[in-house]
Amino acid sequence: MKIYGDSKSGNCYKLKLVCTNLGLDYTWVELDILKKETQTSDFLSKNPNGKIPIIELSSGEVLTESNAILNYIADNTALLPSEPLNRAKVLQWQFFEQYSHEPNIAVARFIEKYLGLPEERRSEYKQKQIAGYKALDIMEEHLSKNLFFVNNNYSIADISLYAYTHVADEGGIDLSPYPHIQHWLQQVEQQPGYCSMYE
Amino acid sequence: MKIYGDSKSGNCYKLKLVCTNLGLDYTWVELDILKKETQTSDFLSKNPNGKIPIIELSSGEVLTESNAILNYIADNTALLPSEPLNRAKVLQWQFFEQYSHEPNIAVARFIEKYLGLPEERRSEYKQKQIAGYKALDIMEEHLSKNLFFVNNNYSIADISLYAYTHVADEGGIDLSPYPHIQHWLQQVEQQPGYCSMYE
Repeated sequence: MKIYGDSKSGNCYKLKLVCTNLGLDYTWVELDILKKETQTSDFLSKNPNGKIPIIELSSGEVLTESNAILNYIADNTALLPSEPLNRAKVLQWQFFEQYSHEPNIAVARFIEKYLGLPEERRSEYKQKQIAGYKALDIMEEHLSKNLFFVNNNYSIADISLYAYTHVADEGGIDLSPYPHIQHWLQQVEQQPGYCSMYE
Repeated sequence: MKIYGDSKSGNCYKLKLVCTNLGLDYTWVELDILKKETQTSDFLSKNPNGKIPIIELSSGEVLTESNAILNYIADNTALLPSEPLNRAKVLQWQFFEQYSHEPNIAVARFIEKYLGLPEERRSEYKQKQIAGYKALDIMEEHLSKNLFFVNNNYSIADISLYAYTHVADEGGIDLSPYPHIQHWLQQVEQQPGYCSMYE
């Protein structure tokens, strides 16, 4: 399996983490978003949406969207429950991540870390932080009663939410008011095969 | 199964459509977003994110996020393939819908249809339309070679993308340059058990 990703991207890191958690081999093809390496005609022939990560299978088939890929890789493993309601709850938290969490927390981080917080995007940066804190409030409330997001077991729902939460400070977001999130981050980091984002 | 939804919402309509396609019974609990009926303490106890649709099962369990609910309802039916790669491709298109399509096409529609296109949101409205056309371009390209989104069979990926595409004109988006999308909309409308959004 070939993964096309940018090492600084949380969405791409999700795939690295699931593979090391599961002990799977993969080939990493590094692409730089800022150098527009996801907008070349070659890359757009693989994903017309111009986004990473994507995976390419030995058959030549391509799969896009980080959370869809996580479901594919983790199918029939301990990281994705087979019981239908729990499986749907994994998806519930992953759609929460892509709609209410990532577009705020990851974009605040992008504006600060990738773009250097330019003046013309400061108002958007502040709005993204406010909406990001709202997503963290929902996570904190859930984690005050649960060890992990689904059925008290570590799953790909945790991987999806860990990716940008653990680097939220790079978008100026302060996790100190969130003791249960902090404890959960530590639990994720103690899972077998954990790898950090920048190693 | 009890569905809490707003009849004008495409995300809620997805659940009505999958149930009529599959011939499933459900109880519909109507909530009005504009009257803030999704922000009451009673509703927030069911979904702390304050969003609809949600479903409540006879066990009292609640599931949120429209596309997660579609996967739960359609599991083990013809509307969700069991083969792993095709199942992941359904998710691929559903995550595309929630990240690159709905936040643009549905929000343009919300600004026009729900809010009456107020002056202070016209610039955002234009930006949402531009990004919405980009999502439609990707769909058109795919549908120029495929009858449906996954494996040439009607699935919940089609339901997810149909919901806001077929009312894109309500957000000022013109579908006339998209013949393959128009043909696909007709194909969806010919599926057994189809119900329209406003019936």
